[in-house]
Amino acid sequence: MTDYRAPLQDMQFLLYDVFDVEQAWSQLAGMDDLNRELADALLEEAARLTETLIAPLSRPGDEAGVRFDNGKVFTPEGFKPAWETYRAGGWIGFAGDPQYGGQGMPRSLTLMVEEMMHSASNAFCMYSILTSGLALALKSHGSEALKRRFLPLLYSGDCAGAMCLTESHSGTDLGLLRTRAEPLGNDTYRITGTKIFITGGEQDLTDNILYLVLARLPDAPEGSGGISMFLVPKRKLKDDDSPGDANGVSCGSVEHKMGIHASSTCVIHFDGAEGWLVGEVNNGLKAMFTMMNYERLSVGLQGLGCSELAYQKSAAYARERLQSRAPAGAVHPELPADPIIEQPDVRRMLLTQKALIEAGRAFVLYAGMQLDRARYGAEDAKPKARQLSALLTPVGKAFLSDRGLECCLEGQMVFGGHGYIREWGMEQLVRDARIAQIYEGTNGIQALDLVKRRVQANGGEHVGWVLADIRAFVGQHDTVLGDYARLLLAAVDRLQSVTDLVVAEGAADANAGPAAAVDYLAQFGYVLYGWMWARILVAASHHDDQAAGGYYAFRRQLGDFYFRRLLPRAALHAEVIEAGTATLMATPSERF
Amino acid sequence: MTDYRAPLQDMQFLLYDVFDVEQAWSQLAGMDDLNRELADALLEEAARLTETLIAPLSRPGDEAGVRFDNGKVFTPEGFKPAWETYRAGGWIGFAGDPQYGGQGMPRSLTLMVEEMMHSASNAFCMYSILTSGLALALKSHGSEALKRRFLPLLYSGDCAGAMCLTESHSGTDLGLLRTRAEPLGNDTYRITGTKIFITGGEQDLTDNILYLVLARLPDAPEGSGGISMFLVPKRKLKDDDSPGDANGVSCGSVEHKMGIHASSTCVIHFDGAEGWLVGEVNNGLKAMFTMMNYERLSVGLQGLGCSELAYQKSAAYARERLQSRAPAGAVHPELPADPIIEQPDVRRMLLTQKALIEAGRAFVLYAGMQLDRARYGAEDAKPKARQLSALLTPVGKAFLSDRGLECCLEGQMVFGGHGYIREWGMEQLVRDARIAQIYEGTNGIQALDLVKRRVQANGGEHVGWVLADIRAFVGQHDTVLGDYARLLLAAVDRLQSVTDLVVAEGAADANAGPAAAVDYLAQFGYVLYGWMWARILVAASHHDDQAAGGYYAFRRQLGDFYFRRLLPRAALHAEVIEAGTATLMATPSERF
Repeated sequence: MTDYRAPLQDMQFLLYDVFDVEQAWSQLAGMDDLNRELADALLEEAARLTETLIAPLSRPGDEAGVRFDNGKVFTPEGFKPAWETYRAGGWIGFAGDPQYGGQGMPRSLTLMVEEMMHSASNAFCMYSILTSGLALALKSHGSEALKRRFLPLLYSGDCAGAMCLTESHSGTDLGLLRTRAEPLGNDTYRITGTKIFITGGEQDLTDNILYLVLARLPDAPEGSGGISMFLVPKRKLKDDDSPGDANGVSCGSVEHKMGIHASSTCVIHFDGAEGWLVGEVNNGLKAMFTMMNYERLSVGLQGLGCSELAYQKSAAYARERLQSRAPAGAVHPELPADPIIEQPDVRRMLLTQKALIEAGRAFVLYAGMQLDRARYGAEDAKPKARQLSALLTPVGKAFLSDRGLECCLEGQMVFGGHGYIREWGMEQLVRDARIAQIYEGTNGIQALDLVKRRVQANGGEHVGWVLADIRAFVGQHDTVLGDYARLLLAAVDRLQSVTDLVVAEGAADANAGPAAAVDYLAQFGYVLYGWMWARILVAASHHDDQAAGGYYAFRRQLGDFYFRRLLPRAALHAEVIEAGTATLMATPSERF
Repeated sequence: MTDYRAPLQDMQFLLYDVFDVEQAWSQLAGMDDLNRELADALLEEAARLTETLIAPLSRPGDEAGVRFDNGKVFTPEGFKPAWETYRAGGWIGFAGDPQYGGQGMPRSLTLMVEEMMHSASNAFCMYSILTSGLALALKSHGSEALKRRFLPLLYSGDCAGAMCLTESHSGTDLGLLRTRAEPLGNDTYRITGTKIFITGGEQDLTDNILYLVLARLPDAPEGSGGISMFLVPKRKLKDDDSPGDANGVSCGSVEHKMGIHASSTCVIHFDGAEGWLVGEVNNGLKAMFTMMNYERLSVGLQGLGCSELAYQKSAAYARERLQSRAPAGAVHPELPADPIIEQPDVRRMLLTQKALIEAGRAFVLYAGMQLDRARYGAEDAKPKARQLSALLTPVGKAFLSDRGLECCLEGQMVFGGHGYIREWGMEQLVRDARIAQIYEGTNGIQALDLVKRRVQANGGEHVGWVLADIRAFVGQHDTVLGDYARLLLAAVDRLQSVTDLVVAEGAADANAGPAAAVDYLAQFGYVLYGWMWARILVAASHHDDQAAGGYYAFRRQLGDFYFRRLLPRAALHAEVIEAGTATLMATPSERF
């Protein structure tokens, strides 16, 4: 059994060589103390924590699952002490506002830590990132009084967070939700309704839980324009903010799921629970998106984290498992058979994972740097950085989680029959990675958001910025990139023409964008990954091939694999989009 | 919750309209009594049995799983009475030799029944198809005495079968196996060794189990040329062939798996168990392939069966689930929201499933007709039919099970978060369908078999037969097929050129075939499915568009979807193959 090892070298190569984050950090407000030395120390500490404290929880946590007993939820053995250590280390407020007790680290650094957390245990990580995400939404939309009162409790992990959107009849379409809020005066409200699929809705890690709840005021208009957002504690707070009496919040049951068994997914009843309005009346859905967008990139990271572990485990297995001879003759005649890593098809499975992981991590870092610029950058750079972040978020969520399942499936297949039994942990990775494609808005919904709001809404201008950046980068480095420059530019041109098509058709046919959406997101993803590989190859070219035990030569081989065997998928998605809308909508719905 | 409904209309359209099996059956030896009336009656009875008896076992069987207690395995509640009904109906010997009590039905009919069985319950089906498969191997290679003694017991389901190949260090590479066989004289042998991953190796459905075991004689040469095949009963047989004393066979444990929880996967110890040689000494691997090839097509059917149920469930859910408005405006303004089937992306997921299912079922039937011709056809037609069967078997196993997972994933996604929880049964379909890609030789191994033994070994001649048949068919029907004829012929030409490449490169580079294998199988699969769609479209063109409530119009829409949105994948696989071998093999194995 291979234990998780945080890929520090890969992360550091991306941070400092490929992206030069030190330079970027130096231009962010409030990051004066952050430098490579500090960042490396933090990454090493995160590596130690995830490898030794969190990763060992994963398999037993999957077997045990959460236990529901009479309204209470018990996490698997070891989760509570791990939470204590983790929260005491300040990791939940790692990206939090220092004014309220956060560590103030940039997203470009915290994302690397989150990846490690997801590799170590998706289920454990969920309790933490929902708390961080809730804190971000509160910081962005809450009153000063609410922030002062609750942010320190969230950053310290004394209190955990959970987001309450979905109802049984209202998932993707939140405009249908029915939970009610009655005003009690003094900015307090009484919340009544039932929410489902609430991750971390009940647990035994913290004495109190804060819920961000979407609900309707009595006079609210119908649909999504009549939704407000409320902060509701599980237990009322005493004068010293320690948990006091029950607040009319109860957990009705937990779901039995395909995976992430150690993450509680709850039905939560609010029976006149008291809470506070966060943000403006009837503008709750927009405010909630602050949290959702934070989570969305993190859900992409879940796919990446699962992929990294799948790769590590399957590469180790492929080096050890002796079976058959290499096609071109025995590589290890002294052994009864060769390790299966000598088989070309096993290489294909390993290289697919690795090439997608490296590009995915680079993409996350690139997206994180836009988020940092939007938040801490120069004022005049903020609007564009914000728009780029909005453009990249659905790709980060969907494309990374789609590739996450792909990598986990390839990793599982390397194990043959051993991958299907629980013992090796590979099937758990597949089951866990699958949820990342579904929750926080299915990947189909991410694609609709991308095409409608991030592409069609601005006539493709924002995508154009990215494509111009890619063309400029390739132009600067075409000697180093050689044939890959040609392949990447062809993919960029095709994406440009498909973008134009999607924008033009969108004006005439309301179905055109939705019909193209999933393929458009995938095409965009492969082009972005191509750009990431170009950046990695340029950075690797500054190093000697023989250096670091072939580390940089391996980047070159992975890049070659990406451009020749994976980037061609972008053109397939283009071709599917170009097939048009009619083929989807011709059949009457009752015929299916 | 949608119950399984056997797709009788779809099956009958393929059987009688698309393939004219009545005509084909009339040319097979021993099928004089078989006609449409009888076949329909059998299909209807199979539908009734699978819908009402088997399908209700699936979800509870997944929850309960098999129970292992002190060497015994207990199947979930309801399995034993269902087995009694099923076996008493003669279904296990449905394809069996009438000389020994079988029903003598052609594979082109029995495959349709197997698909229903897989839709209803993969786990239950495994106990049955392994018994049928063992009977087939015994019929092909056993002595007359063994056949007379054991075939009736297998056909009647009084005795179940299990195949024992894998050992912990020997899976794909059976040449490494260590189980020993000592001759006792009189053609009996004493078998000693431990086998793992034995499906149905122990259960409580039958009083006795027959194992086909691969083992080595004391003087056997090393490797795969030193393996013989033995028939070993769990309990010795009394003079009347009823089960008697224990025979040194024991079950050490059962595996805990990702899915097919109600199918027992056992560690089986043979401690001097007595058995009989089947076939020739040291030729056991080849003999075992009779059984494995039988199972392989059936494993492809597992993918198809799961897909059919995933489609049925997700189409029903998409028609019922109200969420958001259709992009072009409300379709049902009287409802709070439109059914999600009005969303183009939900259509994409449903049409993808349905287009792959229809082509998959047609392919199975086409392959089944080759198997029938090889077994019951005119003598001079048998060799070619056998070679075609050998060519189609790995595609049937791997491509259908790959598409099976794809369809189950799409079906699950239609449900959003509800697809991830156990309640709706969609996540079980994903977990169950996954094994079909792994067992009976992983899909990577199927692809190696295809490229090496079925393509390179004959210089691509056998693929050439298929491509010539496609070209001839398209030539005859190009008026009906219109633009699809052009698309299909282009795909055929590309497959021809890739085949030539794979054959030519194979002569110079032992890695070339293995490096291309998985993509070659996929490319071949998409071309074959394109042919199937061409045949379906031609058959549908003989019917009025308005007929049968739009049934034939829907075939046309599905065909259009296939040619425009799915067939383009074939060219992607070609491009990947053309990228060559170097990109896979450049990295030293220790670098991964």
